[in-house]
Amino acid sequence: MKKGRLVVIGGAEDKNERCEILKEVVDLAGGKESRIVVVTAATKKPEEVGNTYEKTFKKLGAKNISIANVNSRKKDEIEKSKEILKDADCIFFTGGDQLRITSILGGSGIDKMLQEMHEKGVLIVGTSAGASAMSQTMIVEGNDDDSPRKCTIKMAPGLGLLKNVLVDQHFAQRGRIGRLLAAIAQNPSYLGVGIDEDTAIVVEEDHFKVIGNNAVTVVDGRWLTYSNVSESQPNEILALTNVLIHILPSGYRFDLRKWQPVIEEDKA
Amino acid sequence: MKKGRLVVIGGAEDKNERCEILKEVVDLAGGKESRIVVVTAATKKPEEVGNTYEKTFKKLGAKNISIANVNSRKKDEIEKSKEILKDADCIFFTGGDQLRITSILGGSGIDKMLQEMHEKGVLIVGTSAGASAMSQTMIVEGNDDDSPRKCTIKMAPGLGLLKNVLVDQHFAQRGRIGRLLAAIAQNPSYLGVGIDEDTAIVVEEDHFKVIGNNAVTVVDGRWLTYSNVSESQPNEILALTNVLIHILPSGYRFDLRKWQPVIEEDKA
Repeated sequence: MKKGRLVVIGGAEDKNERCEILKEVVDLAGGKESRIVVVTAATKKPEEVGNTYEKTFKKLGAKNISIANVNSRKKDEIEKSKEILKDADCIFFTGGDQLRITSILGGSGIDKMLQEMHEKGVLIVGTSAGASAMSQTMIVEGNDDDSPRKCTIKMAPGLGLLKNVLVDQHFAQRGRIGRLLAAIAQNPSYLGVGIDEDTAIVVEEDHFKVIGNNAVTVVDGRWLTYSNVSESQPNEILALTNVLIHILPSGYRFDLRKWQPVIEEDKA
Repeated sequence: MKKGRLVVIGGAEDKNERCEILKEVVDLAGGKESRIVVVTAATKKPEEVGNTYEKTFKKLGAKNISIANVNSRKKDEIEKSKEILKDADCIFFTGGDQLRITSILGGSGIDKMLQEMHEKGVLIVGTSAGASAMSQTMIVEGNDDDSPRKCTIKMAPGLGLLKNVLVDQHFAQRGRIGRLLAAIAQNPSYLGVGIDEDTAIVVEEDHFKVIGNNAVTVVDGRWLTYSNVSESQPNEILALTNVLIHILPSGYRFDLRKWQPVIEEDKA
């Protein structure tokens, strides 16, 4: 059985006009008859956010939309959500706060269920906070429009659906290259993937493809020749030399095994 | 005779507290007796800006401050400024609009005079717009907090004091990595140097040293394996693979001949 795909969205995806990314989600879920469950754990406004996605997906022709409003670790709430999730073809995590996702779902049984369903082929999607939560170790917060500093970046264990990748979202729009560099410097065995608004990566097996209107910035720290991350003061700016970056707009692919962009014949 | 140094400041340098950068400018100019001329060509508020720098430099102990208010190409204005500039130990370009600097000084004779004085050892300093104008080809405008797009970046011929380097300023604070990448992609024989606010590079012979409170981002496009810059549509986001970057905070040095950071023994 083939592992499911992941769609990791940088937030603020178009819900009113071409809806390119959400249309792709419906297609990858299996089309209009597929069962899509929207998980609103990340947000403090679950009804409002849930309704917006329900309306948007219905507008795109999807017929079976459910909302799993899991907003606490209460046993009955968890069980109710498990019941809603169990036959899903696609599980969609909304934005909000990634710490809400992991602090509510972590160890609840839903997290394990997600892993198992994903292994069996279920499509998992996350936008904004839902995108960050995909990583094994996720970025929780950090300074926007700032140079990399150790103190400003906070990380925590994520859902672990995306291995050895640190995702950041609203990337160019909020000037987040500094915080992603600060994260990657702490362990360059992780690949940094900064996803712009209204942009997503579709992860399938060992590669991803970029879709949407902006770009994905890949930060490869393997070639770092020097960093002062371990000895620097918390508020000090990091020195980093030889970080490789790639800018990949819609249509471009990246090999997650080799950590290399795949440039197709017609483009090269 | 040794060529003069350049101090290229990313804008918003501290004028009230430690004044690290402006203090360094006074030292490099030759100390408190040195003759510093502030050129306000970039700004539409020459008196206000000129007075601020005069006050700040005097507070730092510098005794001989003059203002060259060259705000048009009128012959008498140009001649008057030449007279003020001719014995300067340090020429300081304020912020404003870099196109004002080059459109007023370009071909006026002052530009040639700057080159000659710099060759003979005079210190030249520029902050913000004054920093951009140092390059041979300068960045005039571009989108902040955006992915690299060809259409958003506008360039023009600069004063040419800093060879083969494209300077950008207010760098991390305004999220300008995208626009610097878009510029470098158009000719990777130029080194991209993005200077944060309250941060500067001191260029001396074939290397620079970073001073100030934030960092300098160096963008090295020599290793670019692929870019679609020549065939992309103006508003399309650029694809760029294998761009090398370095983050250098205060105290770090960069070799402009080898395009390599110089990590000192005690840091390595």
